[in-house]
Amino acid sequence: MSVTVPQRILVAPSGFKESLGAESVAHAIAAGLRRVLPGVHVDLAPIADGGEGTAAMLAAATGGTLRHLDVTGPVNIPVRAQWARLGFPAAKTAVVEVAAAAGLRQVPRDRRDPGATTTTGVGQLIAAALDSDAERIVVGCGDSGTCDGGAGALQALGARILDRSGSEIGRGGYELARAARLDLSGLHPGLPRAEIVVAGNPHNLLCGPRGVARVFGPQKGATPAQVEALSLALDNWAAILERDGRALGDLRTGPVTGASGGLGAGLAGGVGAALRSRFDALLDSGLTGADLDRRIGLADLVITAEGAIDLQTPHGKVPAEIARRSRAQGVPVVALAGSLGEGAPSVHEVGIGAIASIIPVPMALADAVADAEHLLTDAAERMMRMLLVGGALSVRMGRGANRPARPVLGARRATGPRIPAARGRARGQNR
Amino acid sequence: MSVTVPQRILVAPSGFKESLGAESVAHAIAAGLRRVLPGVHVDLAPIADGGEGTAAMLAAATGGTLRHLDVTGPVNIPVRAQWARLGFPAAKTAVVEVAAAAGLRQVPRDRRDPGATTTTGVGQLIAAALDSDAERIVVGCGDSGTCDGGAGALQALGARILDRSGSEIGRGGYELARAARLDLSGLHPGLPRAEIVVAGNPHNLLCGPRGVARVFGPQKGATPAQVEALSLALDNWAAILERDGRALGDLRTGPVTGASGGLGAGLAGGVGAALRSRFDALLDSGLTGADLDRRIGLADLVITAEGAIDLQTPHGKVPAEIARRSRAQGVPVVALAGSLGEGAPSVHEVGIGAIASIIPVPMALADAVADAEHLLTDAAERMMRMLLVGGALSVRMGRGANRPARPVLGARRATGPRIPAARGRARGQNR
Repeated sequence: MSVTVPQRILVAPSGFKESLGAESVAHAIAAGLRRVLPGVHVDLAPIADGGEGTAAMLAAATGGTLRHLDVTGPVNIPVRAQWARLGFPAAKTAVVEVAAAAGLRQVPRDRRDPGATTTTGVGQLIAAALDSDAERIVVGCGDSGTCDGGAGALQALGARILDRSGSEIGRGGYELARAARLDLSGLHPGLPRAEIVVAGNPHNLLCGPRGVARVFGPQKGATPAQVEALSLALDNWAAILERDGRALGDLRTGPVTGASGGLGAGLAGGVGAALRSRFDALLDSGLTGADLDRRIGLADLVITAEGAIDLQTPHGKVPAEIARRSRAQGVPVVALAGSLGEGAPSVHEVGIGAIASIIPVPMALADAVADAEHLLTDAAERMMRMLLVGGALSVRMGRGANRPARPVLGARRATGPRIPAARGRARGQNR
Repeated sequence: MSVTVPQRILVAPSGFKESLGAESVAHAIAAGLRRVLPGVHVDLAPIADGGEGTAAMLAAATGGTLRHLDVTGPVNIPVRAQWARLGFPAAKTAVVEVAAAAGLRQVPRDRRDPGATTTTGVGQLIAAALDSDAERIVVGCGDSGTCDGGAGALQALGARILDRSGSEIGRGGYELARAARLDLSGLHPGLPRAEIVVAGNPHNLLCGPRGVARVFGPQKGATPAQVEALSLALDNWAAILERDGRALGDLRTGPVTGASGGLGAGLAGGVGAALRSRFDALLDSGLTGADLDRRIGLADLVITAEGAIDLQTPHGKVPAEIARRSRAQGVPVVALAGSLGEGAPSVHEVGIGAIASIIPVPMALADAVADAEHLLTDAAERMMRMLLVGGALSVRMGRGANRPARPVLGARRATGPRIPAARGRARGQNR
């Protein structure tokens, strides 16, 4: 019983959307832990989830480079995007981030109609990676503002999507309702030499009641009528992809098909991309964090974090993935969140032992976002103190249970009056 | 090591100002604890701190009765106030609550000038208690909106405060600048038969740089100029009380002299009231919670709470008192707060092991106040889970430390790939 505080803590957070990158989140948490346990070994493992910042994180982690390129943005306005050419041990691997070329943040609020936005820029980034002789291109999904089934990306890679009269359809998901045929004869010549991997959330599906239009359309700005129109258009698109494309599996309700507004299905059908769970693709493929499981195994405690923890968290979000891997090795996991929303306790079912909010006082969202770093550090300190009290309590209980009699008065009483047992209320009574 | 979770938890919170009474706070916390540990024994000890709700709590706890009375309010408008006639074991004891007759909440926001408000109603309540043959009257201080040095209360009890010309001065603290003499010849005839105890915060002093005008004036609505005027008026009043009154000790900078805007000093000087630390008076005098120390001694864990925890908390607030008593018996204490303000971690110095906020998401104060009960229950659940993870961690560390070699891979790894030790990053490395 000599050592009862954690000696080694793995901090494996996601980024906080529109606030802090995962690296900053990890550092902020570590600072709070060190206030309580100055000598503790903190292993920082910020987790790239495929969304915003993924390319930059993986480039930095592997000593690779970030390449910048002006591409067609989601609303057809040029945007400066970036992709990563990774370093050792993943040289010859490129990482393309959907958020950089078709991100929700790049769609002005008054134009948030996911049926009108396009993934053209994602195709342009993939083409640039092919031109640089990448042998493996990982397309990180997340934070997209599009729902065009990857049609724009395919078109940028040389595919032609034709209507019944043989004319090419326009950009955006609604146009897919008019699609009749997919012509893949003019695809980028580099494609056969490269493996394309779509790294997405396996819970994101293209069609059906849990399809991407219905689940994500509203948060990307679609009205109910737009959601239905988009849903029908994607049904049509799925049928064409399955008939004319290079798909190996189910493109309608298979895992990852709905990633980034159906980009998963589009790239699978159009260019034979492999659809992978984002964490399998990003953490286990020799990119970075490849040694995450080993590092979890070395830790006494794992701390994860996400901007919001809610009902969605168990469905493929970073804290759930970290919990899954930690539970497999029997390492306890706790989580911090900028916001504990509806259904947050559902994360206990996937192995997160305890959760805490970083919000110390009633405050506006904008203030919380602006001050997230300090709030995280303070919250990590509070959480560590609570864990230590729990540890001390446990040790105390353990001792008590070994004693022949419960030490009610005397041994545990350092000062204070000795109250005769006969006086006052009976033990075990509430009031 | 068989028992490592708490079997018995004492919940000893304060009320949450303008939101929830201490009883409701205690019940809300208990509900959260039981979600995690359905069989745990929760001992509820809501703490009366002398402020709003104290009379009702003590009446309920002792099986006494609450008496209602219309009195002169702090701004001279009648208010319906109440005082408590306690039951066993404190029959013959009355509790008068300053907040009920001179509360800050009874002062309209546009009339919050503490130099103009009066404690007249407090004296009327004390008179009513004397008329009911109470032998002991405990005056609970807290949440007052006055700063008249108790002059109004003394006048209501028959004292005359005269100016140089021999005319009675008016109501309110500013008038004390004109006071020249205190005439106690006409005091209520019941006073000699009764013991008057003022239960206040010992950190509240009448005069000097930490005097009540300077420390509390601004939060009761005084401008800097008003604070200075009031401070001088109270200096004059202190001199008169010491010369003409029945004071036994220092009325200028003694403990509790500044309670409720100097009511402590006024009642001590005017009617010989005993000035006591509010917790000593309210918890240890056979009123209720008299057995608090015994109940702390029986607990494995103590949970306290207050609406706001900040720099002021160590100075005589409920969590600090609970921590002091728990520490004396070596029982761990944690605290929940509706708001963790500036300097909240200072409470660790007075023995609170860990603190947590009840705020789960960025939200408005009004929403937090309105939903405090649910927020508390959820937060208590989260806190209990965190404590249990800490306990499990401690047990795990204890086991690990007893092993000849650290179990890095193998024993702790239930599933997942075995990664050769030579691959990947070296142990102990951050990135």
